[in-house]
Amino acid sequence: MGIYALTGGATGIGAAIKQRILDNGHQVIVVDLKDADIAADLSTQAGRDAAIAGIRKAAPDGLNGLITCAGLASHVPDHPLITSVNYFGTTVIVDGLKDLIALKNGTIILVSSNSAPMCQSPEYMDALLSGDESAARTVSAGIGGHDVYSGSKQAVARWMRRNIRDFAAMGLTINAIAPGYTETPMTKAVAKDPQYGPAIKKFVASIPLQRPGQPEDMADMTEFLLSDKARFICGSMLFIDGGHDAMLRPDNI
Amino acid sequence: MGIYALTGGATGIGAAIKQRILDNGHQVIVVDLKDADIAADLSTQAGRDAAIAGIRKAAPDGLNGLITCAGLASHVPDHPLITSVNYFGTTVIVDGLKDLIALKNGTIILVSSNSAPMCQSPEYMDALLSGDESAARTVSAGIGGHDVYSGSKQAVARWMRRNIRDFAAMGLTINAIAPGYTETPMTKAVAKDPQYGPAIKKFVASIPLQRPGQPEDMADMTEFLLSDKARFICGSMLFIDGGHDAMLRPDNI
Repeated sequence: MGIYALTGGATGIGAAIKQRILDNGHQVIVVDLKDADIAADLSTQAGRDAAIAGIRKAAPDGLNGLITCAGLASHVPDHPLITSVNYFGTTVIVDGLKDLIALKNGTIILVSSNSAPMCQSPEYMDALLSGDESAARTVSAGIGGHDVYSGSKQAVARWMRRNIRDFAAMGLTINAIAPGYTETPMTKAVAKDPQYGPAIKKFVASIPLQRPGQPEDMADMTEFLLSDKARFICGSMLFIDGGHDAMLRPDNI
Repeated sequence: MGIYALTGGATGIGAAIKQRILDNGHQVIVVDLKDADIAADLSTQAGRDAAIAGIRKAAPDGLNGLITCAGLASHVPDHPLITSVNYFGTTVIVDGLKDLIALKNGTIILVSSNSAPMCQSPEYMDALLSGDESAARTVSAGIGGHDVYSGSKQAVARWMRRNIRDFAAMGLTINAIAPGYTETPMTKAVAKDPQYGPAIKKFVASIPLQRPGQPEDMADMTEFLLSDKARFICGSMLFIDGGHDAMLRPDNI
């Protein structure tokens, strides 16, 4: 039996991953605002500290894995909040737990997005990747929600890749999954949003496989990445999006 | 029980995939120069025609999947031969069998490489992607073996992505795996090559996870992609390389 930690496990992709881990007979420590083993607000440093301390207490001998699903979508009007949860609520948690994961030669899975390449704000990317939360929050307040969401998801993947030698040297692996549009409470809220809804519906209709993703599609890949069969996969951005990224960026590999 | 076709199944990654498919109780039709169900030379159109005809005869009701492992490495002095086997021996086979795979809503796995991004010859890429085998062979004769190998592997991935809507519309999925350096008879030959050996050894030593890949690592991902758990993954280039691509192209996602 393994022991895993999971942020954003109360709904959507996180809830599907939680269930899958439980179905496979493992233990999972869920961090979320509510309906969680550890109730913590990852938008604040105090919340991140509480999450890290709670997980360390629950798994003093190490973690087999960490999956960071907590995230807010582009329709959330408070862009600094998206910034703080999606990027800093991921990277700070990973940094605060990586030694615990290395103890068990475990693995980390970051939930990025197939929208990650779409961010049009280099200034936002720079602010995020410099690790300056205050600056990144300020920049995000002045740009569109789609750039904030996609930029936060791009930055977590690039942060992972920039630090890959250090992670690997610790004896752990780390990868990002990039879900395409997936039917969850979060995306259903975006689809209902008067500003973002029409674009999202058009986007979903253009998925080559002609269906949206389901949380189970992401749980399936996560299950594989957590298994012993994925130990040479490291630093990869794994798109699970029905062909959408291939269609939108055919010459990007 | 499923029925799969596999090119280059006699040695290396292909042999590991063949064994995995058999271990899972499926049937596999292997195409290779020798030690195969269908002996065919994929460097020639006659050989490709023979492979396609042989597979169609062996699986008249459709294929659950096709995996294209046949390939030659950068140390092979005959660069047009690398071109013909690696690119045209992949794309022509896929085009000739895709309807058979669609019959079973099957899946295709192309074996690309984590060296794919490294090709420095846009002229070679253009010749390959235009589908002009004669022109591509001519260009390849005038460039280095590493550009030919990596270019052929880049082109199969881009060809897949450029055609993703058509593949998806047929009811099949297709993805590419990008192995990092993997210990096989092919790569052992490159490591022994006086021209390419020293660079390869340095390359292997720089893998973040500090070990080369094994054919089983690639068979593990292939097994997952062939399963029902990977049906939303389409058009993706999946790196399995111990963190090497992340280290070399940190900001590329």
